[in-house]
Amino acid sequence: MQTLIQEKVQQAINILQEKDIDLWLTFVRETSAFADPVLPLIYGHDLTWHSAILLTRKGERIIILGTFEAESARRTGAYETVIPYDKSIKLVLLETLRRLDPRQIAVNYSVNDVLADGLSHGLYRTLCDYLEGTPYAARLVSAEGIIAALRGRKTPVEVARIRAAVEVTDQIYQSAFEYAQPGMTEKQISQFMHDQLVKFGVGAAWEYDGCPIVNAGPDSPAGHIGPSDLAIKRGQILHLDFGVRKDDYCSDIQRVVYFLASHRNKPPEAVTRGFDTVVRAIQAAAAAIKPGVLGKEVDAAARRVVTQAGYPEYMYATGHQLGRNAHDGAALLGPLWERYGDTPNYPLEAGQVYTIEPGLAVPGYGYMGIEEDVLVTEKGVEFLSQPQLELILR
Amino acid sequence: MQTLIQEKVQQAINILQEKDIDLWLTFVRETSAFADPVLPLIYGHDLTWHSAILLTRKGERIIILGTFEAESARRTGAYETVIPYDKSIKLVLLETLRRLDPRQIAVNYSVNDVLADGLSHGLYRTLCDYLEGTPYAARLVSAEGIIAALRGRKTPVEVARIRAAVEVTDQIYQSAFEYAQPGMTEKQISQFMHDQLVKFGVGAAWEYDGCPIVNAGPDSPAGHIGPSDLAIKRGQILHLDFGVRKDDYCSDIQRVVYFLASHRNKPPEAVTRGFDTVVRAIQAAAAAIKPGVLGKEVDAAARRVVTQAGYPEYMYATGHQLGRNAHDGAALLGPLWERYGDTPNYPLEAGQVYTIEPGLAVPGYGYMGIEEDVLVTEKGVEFLSQPQLELILR
Repeated sequence: MQTLIQEKVQQAINILQEKDIDLWLTFVRETSAFADPVLPLIYGHDLTWHSAILLTRKGERIIILGTFEAESARRTGAYETVIPYDKSIKLVLLETLRRLDPRQIAVNYSVNDVLADGLSHGLYRTLCDYLEGTPYAARLVSAEGIIAALRGRKTPVEVARIRAAVEVTDQIYQSAFEYAQPGMTEKQISQFMHDQLVKFGVGAAWEYDGCPIVNAGPDSPAGHIGPSDLAIKRGQILHLDFGVRKDDYCSDIQRVVYFLASHRNKPPEAVTRGFDTVVRAIQAAAAAIKPGVLGKEVDAAARRVVTQAGYPEYMYATGHQLGRNAHDGAALLGPLWERYGDTPNYPLEAGQVYTIEPGLAVPGYGYMGIEEDVLVTEKGVEFLSQPQLELILR
Repeated sequence: MQTLIQEKVQQAINILQEKDIDLWLTFVRETSAFADPVLPLIYGHDLTWHSAILLTRKGERIIILGTFEAESARRTGAYETVIPYDKSIKLVLLETLRRLDPRQIAVNYSVNDVLADGLSHGLYRTLCDYLEGTPYAARLVSAEGIIAALRGRKTPVEVARIRAAVEVTDQIYQSAFEYAQPGMTEKQISQFMHDQLVKFGVGAAWEYDGCPIVNAGPDSPAGHIGPSDLAIKRGQILHLDFGVRKDDYCSDIQRVVYFLASHRNKPPEAVTRGFDTVVRAIQAAAAAIKPGVLGKEVDAAARRVVTQAGYPEYMYATGHQLGRNAHDGAALLGPLWERYGDTPNYPLEAGQVYTIEPGLAVPGYGYMGIEEDVLVTEKGVEFLSQPQLELILR
């Protein structure tokens, strides 16, 4: 069976062929202090001395690295050619480039995508210094498109890991719904869910203090702010945004619970209508998803449901990619607002995993936000989370 | 009382005055995905949109960042001028540069020091794009010297945190010495020390699987390799290399224990002589340390003791800096070997914290390595660890 690293390295070769780029060069050093975010995808260990990973359109998989780390590299089974060096990488790197004689050398910088921008400027200067006087200095190009495709298109192993993270998240949510009672504070709910992380042996999918986000009722500020001493009250919405990191892969899910007012057996019309609108917006986004569609088109489909129902539009993107990070790469299900740059114009690709997370405020009751995780398939979409289609009543 | 961030920002201003550099610009984005390693020293939170921290020789402390993060920036109390923006940082950054009109703009790239090389090449291009057509593009210089001084010279709060990490390490070592018995494997000792990390609520100072390094007897390979199923035997040395991270600051300490052979009440001459040689080498290094001395001179003092006693020289540096990372910055107590570049030529400065860790093999008995943590003071040196001056016998 192929390991994840072997899968991703093979996938990278396929992407080079598809994009007709001769060579992708990942150049790093002392990654325990400062690591190119692509390294966990194609290598999976730290590299200490100056090291170079070379993948070619023709299928060569080469790594040049310090002697003491050569055995680790061989054991990945992902690199057919492991070239250890003792004193300086320069000569052996130049020899290898001369042999490959690539038309383009893609390196890891990107103006648009932080996750494709792992080459530090000092290392870039070192590389240019090595290449001075060769024809290769002029052949450096950005690897942005390669990295976006490699990170975005999840392999079967990656999808299985995201599914496992989603499954644990669902179990933790079920316990949290049981646990939550009127009078408990946002902080108590957060503490309970943090305890569940330990119980399940998983990590938080994003910054610990804000995972979960807990909003008890209409006075709790929305957005990425830590839980407060506000208490859950009857006649209010409890909104939760939570995800776990399991085997390096993340989930990201929002759920809503309504605490019935005393002597009532159903929520008020305003709450039901808000819930139904968000569910319909999610379904509209899901229905719009298939390979080739643009992110902004999916965003518009969900956003339209919310605004046509008379609510103000939400001031964030409908969804983002999910994977090794909770925000996993540039392509976005978002509107063409300046702060999103060109990322809503990227076409969807099979194998990408996105969140769908429209939301709205129900005045006097609280924030109604639901978030599902979905896989783009060849034909359309598959929900990885069990979508919330009924308002949970307590 | 000043917080650590306030202390370090003030220290940075002093360093700019000392080095006569008008402006230090730290330029970042989405640091939760990929963070400039200097950010925890001068800011202490993540920054999401393109953000700029500007510190000047004249003492101005300015941060330009996305609206939603402005309140966090104000609460640091370290920045007198917090400039939030909504759409694009470009105009406000250019306005600020024109007002300051600096002769030099130091930015975070470095060929030599990974910890001073936090500016990605993509962000560097963005910055050059902003500065095109202004006089400032030509004034960019490396901030390597500023960052090396800022990271190296520990403030009182930083030294107190390292002391606290050393103190916990010492306590964990004491329990481990009690716990260790002949017949136990390296893995069991490692597991026990990992459990102590949880008990004390601290992290490992470096990669968890290799912290501690445990070497039971002469057949255990030296170097940064994980613990094995080798068992401790009587008549052999147990060597441990371990450190903790507490409140973001690290310790890094090696200790040796000798398990007396049956019916013996003292170790053999070879073991005693090896131990005494390493202790003397550490004392020789410590005696050589004072501000202005070069790292290679301290290295030579320790190395000479080992080689003059007839042992082969150790194939690594005598010591490295310690702080927020276990390997904390470029200046090194090392020999002028090619792989260390120019870093053994840096002069020592008061406030730096170094390890001292000579070692030697005692054939047939095991690896004899001791590591102490020391502070460079105005007059010389202070041991932060309680130095091991007696071989622990069990």
